[in-house]
Amino acid sequence: MVAAQKINKDLQEERDKVTFVIEEFAKWFYGGPRQLHEKRFLENYILSDPDLQSDVDPSYLSHKEKYEEAIRRVVVILKRIDKLQAEGHKIDNVHKKVLGSMIVSNVFKEGSPLTTHIGMFGQALASLGTPEQQAEWLDRALRCRIWGTYVQTELGHGTFVRGLEVTSTYDPKTKEFVINSPTTTSYKWWPGGLAHTVNHVVVFAQLYSLGKHHGIQPFIVQVRDFETHKPMKGIIIGEIGTKVGFNTVNNGFLAFDNVRIPLKNMLMRNSQVLENGEFIKSQSPVLNYGVMTEVRVDIVNGMAQHLAKAVTIAMRYSTVRRQSPIDPKLPEPKIIEHVTQQMKIFPAIAKVIAIKVAADKLYNLYDEITAEVKSGNLSRLPDLHALSCCLKVVTTNEVAQSVQICRLACGGHGFLNSSGFHDIYGNVVAAQHYEGENTVLLLQTARYLIKAWSQVLQGKKLTPSVEYLSAYKSGQLGKWKGSPNGILTALQAATAGQIALAYKHLEERKKTSSVEVATSQTGIELAKASELHCQVFLLSSLMWSVNRAAKYFSKALGEVFQDILHIYAYDLALRNLGSMLQFVSFSSADLEQLQMDFEASLKKFKNNSIGVVDGFDIPDSVLGSTLGAYDGDVYERLLSAAKKSPLNQEDVNKSFDLYLKPFIKSNL
Amino acid sequence: MVAAQKINKDLQEERDKVTFVIEEFAKWFYGGPRQLHEKRFLENYILSDPDLQSDVDPSYLSHKEKYEEAIRRVVVILKRIDKLQAEGHKIDNVHKKVLGSMIVSNVFKEGSPLTTHIGMFGQALASLGTPEQQAEWLDRALRCRIWGTYVQTELGHGTFVRGLEVTSTYDPKTKEFVINSPTTTSYKWWPGGLAHTVNHVVVFAQLYSLGKHHGIQPFIVQVRDFETHKPMKGIIIGEIGTKVGFNTVNNGFLAFDNVRIPLKNMLMRNSQVLENGEFIKSQSPVLNYGVMTEVRVDIVNGMAQHLAKAVTIAMRYSTVRRQSPIDPKLPEPKIIEHVTQQMKIFPAIAKVIAIKVAADKLYNLYDEITAEVKSGNLSRLPDLHALSCCLKVVTTNEVAQSVQICRLACGGHGFLNSSGFHDIYGNVVAAQHYEGENTVLLLQTARYLIKAWSQVLQGKKLTPSVEYLSAYKSGQLGKWKGSPNGILTALQAATAGQIALAYKHLEERKKTSSVEVATSQTGIELAKASELHCQVFLLSSLMWSVNRAAKYFSKALGEVFQDILHIYAYDLALRNLGSMLQFVSFSSADLEQLQMDFEASLKKFKNNSIGVVDGFDIPDSVLGSTLGAYDGDVYERLLSAAKKSPLNQEDVNKSFDLYLKPFIKSNL
Repeated sequence: MVAAQKINKDLQEERDKVTFVIEEFAKWFYGGPRQLHEKRFLENYILSDPDLQSDVDPSYLSHKEKYEEAIRRVVVILKRIDKLQAEGHKIDNVHKKVLGSMIVSNVFKEGSPLTTHIGMFGQALASLGTPEQQAEWLDRALRCRIWGTYVQTELGHGTFVRGLEVTSTYDPKTKEFVINSPTTTSYKWWPGGLAHTVNHVVVFAQLYSLGKHHGIQPFIVQVRDFETHKPMKGIIIGEIGTKVGFNTVNNGFLAFDNVRIPLKNMLMRNSQVLENGEFIKSQSPVLNYGVMTEVRVDIVNGMAQHLAKAVTIAMRYSTVRRQSPIDPKLPEPKIIEHVTQQMKIFPAIAKVIAIKVAADKLYNLYDEITAEVKSGNLSRLPDLHALSCCLKVVTTNEVAQSVQICRLACGGHGFLNSSGFHDIYGNVVAAQHYEGENTVLLLQTARYLIKAWSQVLQGKKLTPSVEYLSAYKSGQLGKWKGSPNGILTALQAATAGQIALAYKHLEERKKTSSVEVATSQTGIELAKASELHCQVFLLSSLMWSVNRAAKYFSKALGEVFQDILHIYAYDLALRNLGSMLQFVSFSSADLEQLQMDFEASLKKFKNNSIGVVDGFDIPDSVLGSTLGAYDGDVYERLLSAAKKSPLNQEDVNKSFDLYLKPFIKSNL
Repeated sequence: MVAAQKINKDLQEERDKVTFVIEEFAKWFYGGPRQLHEKRFLENYILSDPDLQSDVDPSYLSHKEKYEEAIRRVVVILKRIDKLQAEGHKIDNVHKKVLGSMIVSNVFKEGSPLTTHIGMFGQALASLGTPEQQAEWLDRALRCRIWGTYVQTELGHGTFVRGLEVTSTYDPKTKEFVINSPTTTSYKWWPGGLAHTVNHVVVFAQLYSLGKHHGIQPFIVQVRDFETHKPMKGIIIGEIGTKVGFNTVNNGFLAFDNVRIPLKNMLMRNSQVLENGEFIKSQSPVLNYGVMTEVRVDIVNGMAQHLAKAVTIAMRYSTVRRQSPIDPKLPEPKIIEHVTQQMKIFPAIAKVIAIKVAADKLYNLYDEITAEVKSGNLSRLPDLHALSCCLKVVTTNEVAQSVQICRLACGGHGFLNSSGFHDIYGNVVAAQHYEGENTVLLLQTARYLIKAWSQVLQGKKLTPSVEYLSAYKSGQLGKWKGSPNGILTALQAATAGQIALAYKHLEERKKTSSVEVATSQTGIELAKASELHCQVFLLSSLMWSVNRAAKYFSKALGEVFQDILHIYAYDLALRNLGSMLQFVSFSSADLEQLQMDFEASLKKFKNNSIGVVDGFDIPDSVLGSTLGAYDGDVYERLLSAAKKSPLNQEDVNKSFDLYLKPFIKSNL
């Protein structure tokens, strides 16, 4: 048991001002009392393992040592999960709930070598494999008897999947596929755990059979021996090197030198190759979208959680830190008293909630549409695809920016790894880079929006997420009102106006160019329209959720949600003023009022701000920050973390005698 | 000699389109033919040392090994400089030109433990020490006989210098100062090289003499023994731990346990303490601004150079990388053909030039005003201070953002350390954190602007950098014209309008609050006004320089400068549309035209874009990037860098037998 903590008095003073019940907020944030309880149980159960307590932060280790320590920790956790199950605790999907969640985000600050195994390998087998194939591999994967990863990207091709070069050529004589990497650019590159950890991969390759090309298909390949872990014959494998973050994810490269695998190793739930080499095309090519879309929804949800960590750190530090007198007759204030500090942190708190709500809506939509697809109705898939693409882009970009704002809000100390910001940043930035290049994804959403606009022009009815385009067309949007609802309307008008403008330029260009060239040349405006569309979705989701909270929660909490909505909406409006002013009329007085309203909303929220971050319910063992710990003992923690540096274990480093002293002596 | 390189054919194709003489541009960029020649000579001379060639990138080392390797490299370079001097090459200030410049930016990717010695210790001695003190320490410092650093910031206080806690109490009996750190928060924290490298410090402490407090004063203290390098008596010293970047800078902490230093160790060029303890106040307290201002100007200049590296990498990679067909009948294009890629990279190229020009102007201003100050005229110091504050903020923020845009523009490969982006980012971000908290600096500039505005209201004449405020007041600004000049005018109007609005709110608040409280509450608007003022300075400096180039350079180069100015101005206008629309009238057609003009400027510049980054003249040995090397051999370099990872030197990592295999066996 942990002894009662001594809380920094400034922090306690702010906590005493909170007007709502934090536990009520936490239950909402985690989806209900049962989910919150389960999260806390798992955190305690897993993280209390003595083998996970370590005195030297991994950031001091060499790259190789970091990997070895990560594997050690993976196995400690897997054993802990075994123990939990042996003790009779029944928790569905427990491996994903632990290893695929924030619970281990401080154990694996730079990611885990099993993340892709947990998050994608099983899902790929489940969605792409036949029942027989699942019987052979899926259960062993879920029990961690085999470890795998999802291998698609190559050195020369990422987002443009059709350009992949690895080939899989069927040999009907031996009933095998021959998998081959013909060039340097065809080296598979990036999959997590691939380098030294997994022994199986689901790999995507260009299929050739009986001399014909049949597009990209998935295959399962064993890459390392069960007993020795040595690479199998023809397998060239290794890691891709150090990175901004993710240094314990063990991202790898893989090349095939005419590797033979049996016919049964093509994942044939959709398309099939028969023994004689005949190819049978999938009935429903869209089903392949499943894994990618689910991963994108997971990314959006993860962004809310990463940002929750960052704002918890910045908020608590800003309450403990005193600096720069406002009134020269008074002591230096808590820096959160400075409005310029509130301006940095409060909108980031609001963003956590907006993104969490959007992720929830996207999960629901995903479940609904997946069920529709199973019953043969594919009509809403494009809507889901369009939303998941732009949300992945906008949330990763905005969270990357907000994490940096939080870090800068902590002054010099934010630059220290012990603050925790850099590891959060590394994880967030990784998501900007993976699962589709952000601009390409925006242009995919834009294609959907342009199609929707052309339907508006034809007088057709649209799905709810783009209904506002019709309203714009019929002149129902455009008059400025300074409420969140008015901001939503103005943002919808700006988005619709931007789409209409891009559409016009596209049509003009189509007179002299092909549709593809015209689309490419209109890319800047199209990408902008997609970003705005995403902001409309985020704000409208948040409004929906806040209105709902007013019905279901206590009055005090309902008011906090209102405050959060106001901050979010005003900040969004001020950041998108250029776009809005282009399509909506404002007076000077309107603009002055908007700024005033924003500042008033910060002031109104201030007394509850510490309560909300406490309600994100991130224990110190998960937060892993000298600046953000619950007790606010910032300075002692900074000093104590520094003193643990291996360099500080010796008064004099050997480089003095080896290099410095001889030089000084020679230079007298 | 390096053999003639084989150049990637796509890259060569683009180089063949360049219309201007790259060497002419390079001469301008480095300040003249002599400076360019000297830079190239030093690069070759220093970096060709065989002891600087190493096969394992430092990012694979442990934190401790990184430091030891950095010290080894420091000494290799110092010996190389000795050799150069012994061979009779006469280069002024050669230590700073090598160790304080980009030449070593790939040798010390995360900074050098001597940066602060080179950049601040000598300057502090020169500007704060008496001639006798300089005779004792300065020459030894310049010859690297003693090594020092500049010690000001504490755990509990950074930007608010008056809040520092370390005390220096004069003891007239022994004619010594007693330096003491009374609290945890008084630990000195951050100085480069402090932890294990330097043996001297210039430390700032609260002076007490004869029971009276005399503010912050500088003292020189020896912290380590010459022979053993052990900490001196009463010195508690160590490093502050791992960071986002700067991991080889050896940033340290320092506490004093009643350390005694002789009277002569107070740096007494300004204020003095006599033997009897009498305090003589400095005639000119502003002289202390010198070191800090010079460091800020160096930061601005450094930002241009860091961004030059980032755009060189992104531009060359975008020329080599082919991805995503535009016209489905044609092969995948170079990604620089996509306008959305041009939108990311070309404005960043323009920003390098705008920031470099602004730094030049600031250096000139610094020299002029320093000369004026020496002759007793302090009138323009506030102007210099205001500009150096906001330029430090805006250039570090903008370059941090642009480096990330460049990194994202390189897709997944940008996330690899071998791309070079992360080390650039770490160095840039460090500058966002150090030398003054960015918002506090903006508010210092704002104080100057508010004062200027009140002078306008009184009908007074202003200095050139804020003259546009008078023009705004008399209604001469505000009509939109789509040229760079028109954009400058609109931006000036937006800035003046923002200042006037902040002034109005400030005055209103002063009716019910003290001026300090009112100022604090108006912080958000004040900070925004400062940022805009800085953008006015950047754009007007660039315009001045481009107009000058038209007179002095070839027609072809003059046109390139014009193209760069257009891209810079249009991009700036689009990014600040919200501010401009608030104070300047635009029609819908104006806005549509602005977007069109921006896109046209990208298209016009495209054929010269590779020429400009080649003209930044950054050799591969300085660039240190797999993606940005001159020959464009991107994929082989990525693979070859990966293969050098220590993890890839073994087929099977020991963690398999230690952890993975026993777990799998136990789990059958």
